[in-house]
Amino acid sequence: MKQKRFILSEEEIPRYWYNIMAEMPNKPMPLLNPATREELKAEDLYPLFAKELCHQELNTTDPWIEIPEEVRDLYKYYRSTPLVRAYGLEQRLRTPAHIYFKNESVSPMGSHKLNSAIPQAYYCKKEGITNVTTETGAGQWGASLAYAARLFGLEAAVYQVKISYEQKPYRRSIMQTFGAQVTPSPSMSTRAGRKILTEHPNHQGSLGTAISEAVELARTTPNCKYTLGSVLNHVSLHQTIIGQEAMKQMEMAGEYPDMVIACFGGGSNFGGISFPFMRENILNGKKTRFIAAEPSSCPKLTHGKFEYDFGDEAGYTPLLPMFTLGHNFTPANIHAGGLRYHGAGMIVSQLMKDGLMEAVDIQQLESFEAGCLFAQAEGIIPAPESCHAIAATIREANRCKETGEEKVILFNLSGHGLIDMASYDKYLAGDLQNYTFNDTSV
Amino acid sequence: MKQKRFILSEEEIPRYWYNIMAEMPNKPMPLLNPATREELKAEDLYPLFAKELCHQELNTTDPWIEIPEEVRDLYKYYRSTPLVRAYGLEQRLRTPAHIYFKNESVSPMGSHKLNSAIPQAYYCKKEGITNVTTETGAGQWGASLAYAARLFGLEAAVYQVKISYEQKPYRRSIMQTFGAQVTPSPSMSTRAGRKILTEHPNHQGSLGTAISEAVELARTTPNCKYTLGSVLNHVSLHQTIIGQEAMKQMEMAGEYPDMVIACFGGGSNFGGISFPFMRENILNGKKTRFIAAEPSSCPKLTHGKFEYDFGDEAGYTPLLPMFTLGHNFTPANIHAGGLRYHGAGMIVSQLMKDGLMEAVDIQQLESFEAGCLFAQAEGIIPAPESCHAIAATIREANRCKETGEEKVILFNLSGHGLIDMASYDKYLAGDLQNYTFNDTSV
Repeated sequence: MKQKRFILSEEEIPRYWYNIMAEMPNKPMPLLNPATREELKAEDLYPLFAKELCHQELNTTDPWIEIPEEVRDLYKYYRSTPLVRAYGLEQRLRTPAHIYFKNESVSPMGSHKLNSAIPQAYYCKKEGITNVTTETGAGQWGASLAYAARLFGLEAAVYQVKISYEQKPYRRSIMQTFGAQVTPSPSMSTRAGRKILTEHPNHQGSLGTAISEAVELARTTPNCKYTLGSVLNHVSLHQTIIGQEAMKQMEMAGEYPDMVIACFGGGSNFGGISFPFMRENILNGKKTRFIAAEPSSCPKLTHGKFEYDFGDEAGYTPLLPMFTLGHNFTPANIHAGGLRYHGAGMIVSQLMKDGLMEAVDIQQLESFEAGCLFAQAEGIIPAPESCHAIAATIREANRCKETGEEKVILFNLSGHGLIDMASYDKYLAGDLQNYTFNDTSV
Repeated sequence: MKQKRFILSEEEIPRYWYNIMAEMPNKPMPLLNPATREELKAEDLYPLFAKELCHQELNTTDPWIEIPEEVRDLYKYYRSTPLVRAYGLEQRLRTPAHIYFKNESVSPMGSHKLNSAIPQAYYCKKEGITNVTTETGAGQWGASLAYAARLFGLEAAVYQVKISYEQKPYRRSIMQTFGAQVTPSPSMSTRAGRKILTEHPNHQGSLGTAISEAVELARTTPNCKYTLGSVLNHVSLHQTIIGQEAMKQMEMAGEYPDMVIACFGGGSNFGGISFPFMRENILNGKKTRFIAAEPSSCPKLTHGKFEYDFGDEAGYTPLLPMFTLGHNFTPANIHAGGLRYHGAGMIVSQLMKDGLMEAVDIQQLESFEAGCLFAQAEGIIPAPESCHAIAATIREANRCKETGEEKVILFNLSGHGLIDMASYDKYLAGDLQNYTFNDTSV
């Protein structure tokens, strides 16, 4: 019998995160102070984030950053996640391609988000912080942060994008089970929320707005820091544990990926699985293709502009050099709530600009069709976000079928969709539709 | 750092199921034909189940039954499941006990049920069956059978207990995503359902009634067999993969359990984790205690009678020798839908009668309190069923705290509760209550 799943022993779990900023051909352009347009230093970020995270955010020199022992100890609760050969999917597609996926859905919170929630909560705790705030789209990040906060005895306040709060009530319940305070965003509890609600009383929320609310709460609460689940450099850094594990596991399988594919919201699961393999392209002449799969309704990489923009709707954050649809952009209410963000992280934006990676956009119906096929073939119901990576994988596998090439495709199954079944219900009932980025929800 | 999770390689996954009937001191009494009260032979069961399953059901001679290669190949999709040392829970309880759990919740359907759904669908397919029926309580079994049926190209029809159909709509969606037909039970589609609904128009359903409906559909549909998710001997047989893996994994951890604990509905997850360890008690003088944790609202082992009874409400099944509350018993609408069954499997009933195991009953509020504590300590939200095992574990761990004994406790985390968040919501809001078996839902 052929081996299906590849798992590392606890000793083989990586001890360092990989910081691609130290090795990429062109570093990301600097963060700017919006008022002065001066380059920001780590100290300028201290009011917002734990200090150690501020330094990680701007570290462009050290390729390897040690994972604290306390964090590694908690990673062991669910890592390594399995690398799985998708024999079932290959068979369904009748493709000569070898398809592998990294199954981050087995994390107790159901997605890769915990990989960064644990160190973020850890560094806050270590610096004597007592409260953390954040936003959440689909609820995956919020649930992970709520749990991580609980582990370190921190109080967590989460702004959940209103449309997700309503589409995915179970995610709210999970956060509450871990003791977090959950508020649908936009809310009347912040200046940013009140402004939006006054202008658009039926606003369904966006990640950009929820970030503004969480940042505002952090700024106005003593001993409180803000945390973010994607976009930022230090978040992608923490997620590189995915790609490092996958590299060792592909070695166990005796293969190396021709393509690495991940869905794309702010870039952390994409960067997490890609960057360690991209290092091999940059330093060792490998020729792997890296493909970000974004929703057609929110396609910053394929249809956005590379420019300085805010990370949030209200303009509270520094200016970030990124591919963006504009910080006021409110995408259509697709069910992949985690991908409804207007911009791409700085690292990925630079890599995209430099041609080191590609992007495709996927329509909502194609994504759910791919998700159902995968579910029936592999038994795992994927998160609507991850369905985008699966759809992009299926496109490539079908190309291999046409050409007869036995390419090796690795994609990241960033999370499961068990809490998104209401979305699958709607898809199966024919009640979902496609959107472009001209269809916004306001 | 201390090792937290123990995982077997694919080669170490057991190749045989363990059939305790061949080695227990007193075999279970025979199945009887209700009309003649004559002992049933395998052939008498052919109309209901795949033939191979009928033979497994009555096999009291072979202790080891080979797992077909096709089934082992599919087990590899998620097995081995991790054995986990619950350091987080131990710390919270400040107990000297060493607590381990076998994490069956990582199965793609979220519970141990897939372990038997795969072989049941396999044997049906092998015999040329095209359709399968079943009932489901919480929906865990129905989801697993729906997926297994899909894997082998069988059509599946599932009767879901009405109260669960309403409490857990996502489980219905999962079954439908795999292409199964799902009907809330009691329904007007069967004679058994119509009779109940005529007498009790607001009947909320029970496993006993749903079984009657599924059996009736199987009997009246060409080339269709019935399948069951617990109670029967062959189901417990398939689940022994859990205990066999756990035994190897406990060896990796360098410990041996003083107690093995599992929640109890019909007995398959309990038998699955217990029987391989019980073998060591029977044959090799080990002194492990085996504790079944049942709900106070449906306590067949602690408050039922040992007698011949039907497995279903309408009396379609053979007579089974078992601890029962009566086949017409309809338990209160607790949220652990998988434990709302009136009887205990034949093997477990005999073992209970012979003093080889124990049982405790757990109130609904104690079960959810335990579940929340476990979630905060270990990051996994347990199924309401599994919460009963956790509550029993906590009772024993607290006893160790009083006596200072470093006992080793192993419990089975039979499933996760991500789809049961509405139940947690109610618990957190103070809207749940306790029930005894005098509180029935009709």
